[in-house]
Amino acid sequence: MRFITITSPVNAIIKEALKIKQKYARYRHEAFFIEGPHLIEMAVASPHVEIKRVFFTEEFSNKKEGQRLLRLIISSIKCQPPRDIFIRVSEQVLNKLSDTETPQGIAAVMSCKIARLDGISFKEVPFLVVCDGIQDPGNLGTIIRVSDAAGADAVIILPNTCDAFMPKAIRATAGSLFNIPIIYSGLETLFDFIESKNISLYAADVHAQMSIYEFDFKLPVAIAFGNEAHGVSEVLLKRAKGLKIPILGKAESLNVAMAASVCLYEVVRQRIY
Amino acid sequence: MRFITITSPVNAIIKEALKIKQKYARYRHEAFFIEGPHLIEMAVASPHVEIKRVFFTEEFSNKKEGQRLLRLIISSIKCQPPRDIFIRVSEQVLNKLSDTETPQGIAAVMSCKIARLDGISFKEVPFLVVCDGIQDPGNLGTIIRVSDAAGADAVIILPNTCDAFMPKAIRATAGSLFNIPIIYSGLETLFDFIESKNISLYAADVHAQMSIYEFDFKLPVAIAFGNEAHGVSEVLLKRAKGLKIPILGKAESLNVAMAASVCLYEVVRQRIY
Repeated sequence: MRFITITSPVNAIIKEALKIKQKYARYRHEAFFIEGPHLIEMAVASPHVEIKRVFFTEEFSNKKEGQRLLRLIISSIKCQPPRDIFIRVSEQVLNKLSDTETPQGIAAVMSCKIARLDGISFKEVPFLVVCDGIQDPGNLGTIIRVSDAAGADAVIILPNTCDAFMPKAIRATAGSLFNIPIIYSGLETLFDFIESKNISLYAADVHAQMSIYEFDFKLPVAIAFGNEAHGVSEVLLKRAKGLKIPILGKAESLNVAMAASVCLYEVVRQRIY
Repeated sequence: MRFITITSPVNAIIKEALKIKQKYARYRHEAFFIEGPHLIEMAVASPHVEIKRVFFTEEFSNKKEGQRLLRLIISSIKCQPPRDIFIRVSEQVLNKLSDTETPQGIAAVMSCKIARLDGISFKEVPFLVVCDGIQDPGNLGTIIRVSDAAGADAVIILPNTCDAFMPKAIRATAGSLFNIPIIYSGLETLFDFIESKNISLYAADVHAQMSIYEFDFKLPVAIAFGNEAHGVSEVLLKRAKGLKIPILGKAESLNVAMAASVCLYEVVRQRIY
């Protein structure tokens, strides 16, 4: 394996990786930062992302597990890897890159393949999840995870939603970020797309009249979840059928990630039974 | 309103409140700490907890909203309030007590009324939620919230589960802690109780053969959720019917709070339709 070695934490490549991690430069690079062997192995297997750089310590590359993962990364890179994909760093540099108290010897910069609505390959009856203004990256990551588990075709992220590629969101997806297409779209583009595909748009809304148990989700659906405090935007709500989760106890509401879990699994239940 | 004034952050009453907040003294005091007008108003309305002390700033007691809440607290206290329930503190002292960056002028020490299994008043068909080894207070709080929303009769907390009265758990319940009885119980006591009531015990288990959609939850049920990494304990699993949530995508699992949301709402669906 060809690699370069960096021991200075102020090296330009390290500084760039830190900027990507802190999302200073996201829209220029379309890149994001992950760490730990488990996430990186999932990323390698994913058709939705591509490895740009791998940072590893000498200790990591001396371990059997480390060698296996590095070989796996090499075999996943289609063309002859350019020399600066693999970067061996000192412990000190990896600590600087890492968020965790006990860094696991490897981190990577990934690039997202730009996914588009018209590139979605529907498995069977279309099933889309729309995030419209979710602010907490933990909630967004959790919604991506349950969308994957429920077998949705894609997660569509509207403007004003937080970034799915922030470290906290990535951790909350538990790898599902690599299993399901994440598509950034504008609202009008989304409306045009679902209309062209005969997909019905639903929106989780605490003020809705009808509960999730009263709709037929065997038909093509897109279900939108909104801002933690204010729900989905008015423009979207006007175009969608509102649906609520019945609250039987005294709780005022469920949080958006729990609501998404319940709604998306009602789609699953209706479709498999 | 009779109150005492404390301006020193090292006053014994303040030090005791800090210890309760940090849970140094939980088992001795059976007490916990909450802050902010919204949570405190919910607590006042709750039959499950009792106010021990209220800390407020002068600024808070000068506001209309503050006066309304303080009056509400007074009227909730049945006997003549002893003089040291109400404690006016300086901003500095409230800041010391508070977890948040912008303290909201009021905090309180509450005591939990000890709830017991044989004190549960079942609304209709028994519906219990059992927490067996959950470690993350955010997950535990979320499970309490969805148990309340789903209309469960009580949340039973087995040993080795984290404390439902830690600040992070309390925040995650969003007030549901005050709406539903929280019962600390040993495993054998629980087994005896559910047997005596003809309640079937289920356990969320990723290795289970049958899915949540294949069971009849119209009968009396107790559903257990376990440790984030290892699930419920072996002893409990042996006595329970395992149930799983089907995973249609590539996700390895759902987290325990999402799994609880999906399971508990399947009980709701079956019972209301």
